[in-house]
Amino acid sequence: MYINVLLTPTELPKSSENGERVAIVIDVLRASTTICIAFSSGVKAIIPSTSVEEATGIFQALPPSIRLLGGERRGVKQPGFDIGNSPLEYTPEIVNGKIISFTTSNGTNALQLVRAADSIYIGSFMNLQALSEYIADNHSQSNSEITIICAGSSGAFSLEDACCAGGYVGYLSSFIPTAQLSDSAVASESLFSNYRDNLLGFLQSTTHGKSLRELGFSDDIECAADLNSLEVVPKISGDSIISATLT
Amino acid sequence: MYINVLLTPTELPKSSENGERVAIVIDVLRASTTICIAFSSGVKAIIPSTSVEEATGIFQALPPSIRLLGGERRGVKQPGFDIGNSPLEYTPEIVNGKIISFTTSNGTNALQLVRAADSIYIGSFMNLQALSEYIADNHSQSNSEITIICAGSSGAFSLEDACCAGGYVGYLSSFIPTAQLSDSAVASESLFSNYRDNLLGFLQSTTHGKSLRELGFSDDIECAADLNSLEVVPKISGDSIISATLT
Repeated sequence: MYINVLLTPTELPKSSENGERVAIVIDVLRASTTICIAFSSGVKAIIPSTSVEEATGIFQALPPSIRLLGGERRGVKQPGFDIGNSPLEYTPEIVNGKIISFTTSNGTNALQLVRAADSIYIGSFMNLQALSEYIADNHSQSNSEITIICAGSSGAFSLEDACCAGGYVGYLSSFIPTAQLSDSAVASESLFSNYRDNLLGFLQSTTHGKSLRELGFSDDIECAADLNSLEVVPKISGDSIISATLT
Repeated sequence: MYINVLLTPTELPKSSENGERVAIVIDVLRASTTICIAFSSGVKAIIPSTSVEEATGIFQALPPSIRLLGGERRGVKQPGFDIGNSPLEYTPEIVNGKIISFTTSNGTNALQLVRAADSIYIGSFMNLQALSEYIADNHSQSNSEITIICAGSSGAFSLEDACCAGGYVGYLSSFIPTAQLSDSAVASESLFSNYRDNLLGFLQSTTHGKSLRELGFSDDIECAADLNSLEVVPKISGDSIISATLT
């Protein structure tokens, strides 16, 4: 197994290799955290889109009784949307049994970049151990390649995504000690080792963390920092994200 | 002052800001290390090119008594070249007083990407303190922006370049405590803190370090790891690299 980290959003090239290709998409603040919370609250499926227009079109085609339109631009809920991108909004009362058409500034775009992978998962600090164990159990062939993609911020590097990617590198390589690590995987793991004991303070200090605090979303950061608090394994299936452990 | 690190080779956009823009280009293994050694050995100027053809053309136009053609592709000296890209070749006996037309796989390309900067310097572990002090003395205006660009390897992330970039972040922010750091600057500094006490072992362990050892260039890595051993400040002037401290 080879583990690589894409520190900025970069398209995963098509591969001519025979080994299975697995991707983990990370947008800690906040899309991947919100998706994890939504599945722990019983959402049926989330359909990601890269534009508000596309998300609205998908929403309109869904059965009215089970549909929600969610997401953000510049951090805030868009006009006509049912819910924004704050994980705290995704309670069981609101999302249980629902299908959410979902678009965010960075996270849903990163999902498009790894379409060439055979299996695509959504990772956050909240489901770090659960998802790592699931991947180690289901994708540990010696010739598999795991690519962890950081959604970043407007195409640039995000400290919190790289640190979370490093958490996956650390957990996966502890479960699969023969895994080989790329340079960026080593660098990310080093970041996670430095910050894991004070994740909340770390997330509050990053560029995106500061910006969310200014927008009044401090509670979202506390949620995102709640390491290994959820057992969910969100996975892409067709055009949707579903729960891999409930299928 | 704002300090940013480009972790992979990315073009520095033109700026509409008024502040001075300073760039540091880093290719630890080996172009920037070799350039630093060349200046400590008395080279007069180095003219970087992105292609072997361009480097050969520039070489042919130089006065025969003072010219050298140097560099590599895939780590090795090219046919017709006087010297490769091993810092150990750049001795006073060979390069003192000479002008070198120079092309390498990654380093000389990264130089082209920061052409929009007002001042461009070449950084390595060897001249970390000397260059940081020079920049702090000459470019510490409150509205200046320092961009440290990692040459990487074939467009991808290189652990040793990111770590060295972090060394510059650490030194510069110790000299200029009011400097603000981007997320990637914070991440790079964290890497340098983790590895600074065992730079040689660290450089030997990176992807590029392993590849150079296989090619028989272990001594080059020892040279590159020799922290703060040179006082040189190589700087772009027009199409050439010259010594900023000798002008």
